[in-house]
Amino acid sequence: MRQPVTEAFVEALRRLVAPDRVTTGAEALDTYSVDGLAREGHRPDVVVWPDGVDEVAAVARLCDQHLVPLVPRGAGTGYTGGAVPLFGGVVLALERLNRILEIDRSNLLAVVEPNVINGDLQQAVERVGLFYPPDPASLAKSALGGNVAENAGGPRAFKYGTTKRYVLGLEAVLPTGDVITTGGRTVKNVVGYDLTSLLVGSEGTLAIITKIVLRLLPKPLATATLRATFASVSAAAEAVSAVIDRGVEPATLELVDRDSLDAAQAYLGERLAPAGTEALLLIDVDGFASSIDEQASRVDDACRAAGAVEVLRALDAETREALWRVRRELSPALRTIAPLKLNHDVVVPKGRVPELFDLIHDLRQRSGLRIPSFGHAGDGNIHVNVMADPADADQVRRAHEVEQALFRRVIALGGVISGEHGIGFTKIPFVGLQLSPIEIALMRRIKQAFDPRGILNPGKMFPERPAH
Amino acid sequence: MRQPVTEAFVEALRRLVAPDRVTTGAEALDTYSVDGLAREGHRPDVVVWPDGVDEVAAVARLCDQHLVPLVPRGAGTGYTGGAVPLFGGVVLALERLNRILEIDRSNLLAVVEPNVINGDLQQAVERVGLFYPPDPASLAKSALGGNVAENAGGPRAFKYGTTKRYVLGLEAVLPTGDVITTGGRTVKNVVGYDLTSLLVGSEGTLAIITKIVLRLLPKPLATATLRATFASVSAAAEAVSAVIDRGVEPATLELVDRDSLDAAQAYLGERLAPAGTEALLLIDVDGFASSIDEQASRVDDACRAAGAVEVLRALDAETREALWRVRRELSPALRTIAPLKLNHDVVVPKGRVPELFDLIHDLRQRSGLRIPSFGHAGDGNIHVNVMADPADADQVRRAHEVEQALFRRVIALGGVISGEHGIGFTKIPFVGLQLSPIEIALMRRIKQAFDPRGILNPGKMFPERPAH
Repeated sequence: MRQPVTEAFVEALRRLVAPDRVTTGAEALDTYSVDGLAREGHRPDVVVWPDGVDEVAAVARLCDQHLVPLVPRGAGTGYTGGAVPLFGGVVLALERLNRILEIDRSNLLAVVEPNVINGDLQQAVERVGLFYPPDPASLAKSALGGNVAENAGGPRAFKYGTTKRYVLGLEAVLPTGDVITTGGRTVKNVVGYDLTSLLVGSEGTLAIITKIVLRLLPKPLATATLRATFASVSAAAEAVSAVIDRGVEPATLELVDRDSLDAAQAYLGERLAPAGTEALLLIDVDGFASSIDEQASRVDDACRAAGAVEVLRALDAETREALWRVRRELSPALRTIAPLKLNHDVVVPKGRVPELFDLIHDLRQRSGLRIPSFGHAGDGNIHVNVMADPADADQVRRAHEVEQALFRRVIALGGVISGEHGIGFTKIPFVGLQLSPIEIALMRRIKQAFDPRGILNPGKMFPERPAH
Repeated sequence: MRQPVTEAFVEALRRLVAPDRVTTGAEALDTYSVDGLAREGHRPDVVVWPDGVDEVAAVARLCDQHLVPLVPRGAGTGYTGGAVPLFGGVVLALERLNRILEIDRSNLLAVVEPNVINGDLQQAVERVGLFYPPDPASLAKSALGGNVAENAGGPRAFKYGTTKRYVLGLEAVLPTGDVITTGGRTVKNVVGYDLTSLLVGSEGTLAIITKIVLRLLPKPLATATLRATFASVSAAAEAVSAVIDRGVEPATLELVDRDSLDAAQAYLGERLAPAGTEALLLIDVDGFASSIDEQASRVDDACRAAGAVEVLRALDAETREALWRVRRELSPALRTIAPLKLNHDVVVPKGRVPELFDLIHDLRQRSGLRIPSFGHAGDGNIHVNVMADPADADQVRRAHEVEQALFRRVIALGGVISGEHGIGFTKIPFVGLQLSPIEIALMRRIKQAFDPRGILNPGKMFPERPAH
């Protein structure tokens, strides 16, 4: 049903939008063919930079009329190809919708356009004593519209929840060009179906987000960081449960395994933790100054009871950052191990994290591959990175076997195949492991309710044909 | 397209379900004709008590085949007629699905059937040191399935969020008889559209909930209650902002106005607050024992800075309960003022609560009616009760005028017409004030994706015909 982009169609786009904001130039087409994963690119036929909601609506309407695929794109930092135009057509680059429209202290909210960078909003609200918790690793580069489309998480999600918890309302353009607003400026709202939550995490397949109302919190008054090292992953996982058992809800509860630590140490050329460390936990506690000591002591006790080898504590920003350094350097460090990284963000119920690490250990042994794993242990959400050399066909084959086994066994543990990165197109082959044909068919019908002609970000989230 | 219930249909139901769990007896039909509002009842043709998901699915399939309306019902404590069978047909009474299936400490979750009473779950999880925050006023009677269907709130929603934040996953039966599971046992999950959030608050119009996975928290270690009285509502509202400004996020931030206080005092026959009190705030702070003093002092300061006449503080359960008594007795007290209570649960952005109370004052003056108002000031969610004598036609007319003006002006303040009670059928006339025809048409298409033949809880949430 999709139609190719014609010269006349591009001319029509130029009339709707300023001519210098429409291009078919090779360089732009290449730039907009990939996302943060930077592999498996697909070129669009044309890139358009709309200037506001009216232009977005006009472009959508034109694409709908002409059955031309339309792929909305924020900062393009996703990991599963959500912004990659699989079938050509139009990439709608939202870069010009990049203003913080409002920071409203008395109502504890911000109104932003989709291409405001997460970190820029964080800084802006913190300057006035407020706090926007979602902190994906990409926060210095990723756009809030993309964060909403993917329901981005981050370390602070353990205590504060993911992006979903902070989206009060949206303005969005349907593929047919109609503009809707969902939710509003209040925390509570039970009028009609919760379209806000439905759009969050819908990966640009239902509507194009043009404005976001975000809930803010008062900034925590104090924070401390603890770092505990363990001689086994299971002891670290036990410490996670022990912390929660002691009534503490840390802001973050991050785990780094030995493969990851080794990579970071090799990359930085220095020792970051005692010899024999098999796992380390990074735990932030925040809240009232008066409670920080109690919280830190409870965490300390819990870690030692679980067998921690060493527990360090930092109260000031500089020392805290030094403890976090190992975690921050993981992404660049892993790139140095092997060029191909199949990175997954599986989730298991939080009590089953030890079983997940047993599974990873087993996969490592069987495949002979390195599988550095780290992440949000408090949420049971672990980034499992299967490393391989793409020039070595056998390694690549084993890496894909590991991937299959990982997903199947995570689901058997009561888990899910993605906690943060979404499905895009790279994980479509695995969706059927988690969702039933009936559930997928229902989701397709919902897609159709928004996008009857199927032009918006086609080929994403679900297999193209019903999975019967 | 709806068809009447025939003898043969009832016989078929009896074959699907045990005969003694299907009735057309007048007494049962009356009982199941109303909800918590106990007015504007509509009788079903038949009541069925299924025993599990398979029977629910079989009944749904039969209704779908025969185009018979199917209305799922929990404890029937709603306020907007969500469980009232407007077009006869089958009431599916879920009373037998009432087991707590699991309380899982290591994964911080509970699995329940829909007719577990909220308060029973709270007690069960608190016995093992856990905490289920949503606390609608109906908690001693209302079922968790209904809480999910309506996205119930309550005082603790200010800090802890409404029911939505606690639903990890659902098992639900589509009107066609297909069984789906949504979400799961993990906090994070971005695979497919968020059907869990879509079902929460869908008022039994999309699917029949047969199992719920609820997230739990560790029980807060300590709680204190403060009660502050004010000589004006605006001073009380200012105190709410001042509390938040001081970095405190109280567990509850409830406001009671003078009309409400007068009603409670008359009902109980005793003075509950100093003479001249125009508003009082009930504020709970919770968390670590070490932080309670700091939090309480910050709240105390904030209230005094805003002009509080008196600030009381309670740390033990008994004294705390004594301070809360005025709030707990409000519902029975209001019943004694006037037999007709048009109770609304409007929401405004939290900074606009003073303007909402100005509006209520204005409506009181113009109508000559009593409008006791109280509720969740921290969320901007106020229960506005327009009191009238149904025997006095002029009073009733004025009450409905107040209702219209209230909704219009709340929306002009950036607010919404319902924060907790939903639309059911009693608020359908006002939905068009908040949602556009395009948005309503989109929601109808979503409804159709779940319920192509329109048998499930017809006549709820939206006007029957497109609102063009």
